Amino acid sequence: MDNFSFYSPTFFEFGKDAENKAGELVKRFGGSKVLIHYGGGSVVRSGLLDRVKKSLEEAGVKYTELGGVKPNPRSGLVYEGIELCKKENVDFVLAVGGGSTIDSSKAIAAGVLYDGDFWDFYSGKRIEKALPVGTILTIAAAGSEGSPDSVITKEEGMFKRGASGDAIRPKFSILNPSLTQTLPAYQTAAGITDIMAHLHERYLTNTKEVEVTDRLIEGLLLTMIHEGPRVIADPDNYEARANIMWAGMMAHNNAVGVGRSQDWNSHNIEHELSALYDCAHGAGLAVTMPAVFKYVYKHDVMRFAKLAVRVWGCQMDFDHPEVTALAGIACLENFLKSIGMPLSFEELGAKEEDIPKLVEALCYGDGRTGSISGFVTLDAEDCAKIYRMMIK
Amino acid sequence: MDNFSFYSPTFFEFGKDAENKAGELVKRFGGSKVLIHYGGGSVVRSGLLDRVKKSLEEAGVKYTELGGVKPNPRSGLVYEGIELCKKENVDFVLAVGGGSTIDSSKAIAAGVLYDGDFWDFYSGKRIEKALPVGTILTIAAAGSEGSPDSVITKEEGMFKRGASGDAIRPKFSILNPSLTQTLPAYQTAAGITDIMAHLHERYLTNTKEVEVTDRLIEGLLLTMIHEGPRVIADPDNYEARANIMWAGMMAHNNAVGVGRSQDWNSHNIEHELSALYDCAHGAGLAVTMPAVFKYVYKHDVMRFAKLAVRVWGCQMDFDHPEVTALAGIACLENFLKSIGMPLSFEELGAKEEDIPKLVEALCYGDGRTGSISGFVTLDAEDCAKIYRMMIK
Repeated sequence: MDNFSFYSPTFFEFGKDAENKAGELVKRFGGSKVLIHYGGGSVVRSGLLDRVKKSLEEAGVKYTELGGVKPNPRSGLVYEGIELCKKENVDFVLAVGGGSTIDSSKAIAAGVLYDGDFWDFYSGKRIEKALPVGTILTIAAAGSEGSPDSVITKEEGMFKRGASGDAIRPKFSILNPSLTQTLPAYQTAAGITDIMAHLHERYLTNTKEVEVTDRLIEGLLLTMIHEGPRVIADPDNYEARANIMWAGMMAHNNAVGVGRSQDWNSHNIEHELSALYDCAHGAGLAVTMPAVFKYVYKHDVMRFAKLAVRVWGCQMDFDHPEVTALAGIACLENFLKSIGMPLSFEELGAKEEDIPKLVEALCYGDGRTGSISGFVTLDAEDCAKIYRMMIK
Repeated sequence: MDNFSFYSPTFFEFGKDAENKAGELVKRFGGSKVLIHYGGGSVVRSGLLDRVKKSLEEAGVKYTELGGVKPNPRSGLVYEGIELCKKENVDFVLAVGGGSTIDSSKAIAAGVLYDGDFWDFYSGKRIEKALPVGTILTIAAAGSEGSPDSVITKEEGMFKRGASGDAIRPKFSILNPSLTQTLPAYQTAAGITDIMAHLHERYLTNTKEVEVTDRLIEGLLLTMIHEGPRVIADPDNYEARANIMWAGMMAHNNAVGVGRSQDWNSHNIEHELSALYDCAHGAGLAVTMPAVFKYVYKHDVMRFAKLAVRVWGCQMDFDHPEVTALAGIACLENFLKSIGMPLSFEELGAKEEDIPKLVEALCYGDGRTGSISGFVTLDAEDCAKIYRMMIK
């Protein structure tokens, strides 16, 4: 196991009606004038936004608001949010929504206290200070509610990049599984896929002797495999939603990923797809992961075989471990198909002729120098082959 | 799943030489005058105490010290520590040791800021404020390095009781697996048993639909079953020690126990044994757990069968699930024996004739009214039967 630091000081309020504690929690963590940041109309239509405002008012907390966050959140709205916060003397950013809204809120929170262009943080500069951020989560997926990470798409060039720093870890996150019950099945499934991707990105490691984190990751994957189909079959299954929601947080606050190298190449390869086609990130990952895994499994056949046996219940082929490794990847594909996810370029709306453009942005865009690193380092030729494996 | 709050704002520095960051971390979390609290001579003999002092000096942090913490830490030393902190204007308590030292440090930290008798907290009053506490852990066992809990024995009456409160969660904990390599095998095994007990206490729940925490607990138990025997066979196995150390923290900071009722009756029943005989808590748990589980398994046969199948690899007897449930408990006993733990009253140095006294203290001592509650509520007669099951 590698040396590591781990710090997850987010207060989680989990369960039914938890959003009614928003005002109390903003006050507890030092907010007096809040930016409520959200996406489209669903948080308005459902009455959630009104309940949150009422809770803030009851706690004597002032607020201003900025809606309009889109999936794959854009830099333009971040700049707008930064200006608004400065103008209104906002001292706390409250995200009401999913990963996109939370990531946009984190970017705003960091940008308000920074003299330069906030995009510097998405080009490699570590975030050292930010306004405090709180979240009210409406989809189990990104794990941003418990993570120090944010992903934003720069409109100029459509680069999708990540930034990180303990300063943007949410001070509190409100997780009410009921709020996810109104999601369309496709979005629920995309969220399930994103959570499973976060677990695979951590599972694919070159660090030896990491049994504790292996076992924790496997436990979370087994949970997703059990609960995912239940919630697709019955969107109102609160219990299945609750198990998925905690698994989604645990999958990404890194308690199960400490002390080991991680992969993140499936995410890198997918980001170009959702940046170009504006597809759901989770759907893009469903197309990407099996292709990446089939391309790289020979790098550590036994690790893929372990995943197949422990998580998918495959029988170990002791004479031909690669057979077991590939059987596990096939199980993942079948699972993703069963919950309604796409598995091919065509289903995603991606085009073969765009592959050179995707590879160029992936391997050379925004300062990269010809390859992406992770479980296996992949150069432009590797990445082109992987994109081509997604054409079926 | 039940509603819950979860808050684990401890900063963990994990790995080789991590103790050299003690001074930097004390400063980061606001300490300028530290009480270094520790137990016996091993932290002195190993040179650890000197390294810690050097780190504090280099960071410009002043300190005073108080050694002498014993296993099953006593109230007497806590009173002494509180007086010392007040006299010396200490603003930070740094525990260097295992669970006993950390628990004693937490009690001192809470007592310094409280006008009444600190024992009030161990009689049910919640701890609302305390001096900040940091820890440098020397044994993987109690999980106190990441928990809001502390257990102290009151010398008057020899009651062993717990207190809790977010204020005593460590601000930071330094986890260097190398520091545990010099432990005698018996203490290492007692620590392994304590960690496994924390997991069982959470696994035994009456809450339905808690797959995510079930799977996480199972993953940590599987880790202990894999790594425990390796470290007993080879005390210098750093990697096995590292996996156990993180599992020990994760087993008890409650990330894997949220949203579910828990048991804790094995701990309650054991506490009387270590209070009366001053045995190692983990050794007491090895004797206690199998007896308790055999007494209560019929309350939820399928839960014990699940544990047997998923954790111990037992074949499910679909016609007679109770056979599988009992097979799992037998696997636990065999495992504990294999790592050198006692399984009977005799091996522990406990005496049959003391059972009435143990039951009296357990069920009526210090304000209790005839029973203990958990997975199953146990009255004095139940508890007497359970103690008698430990005579072999």
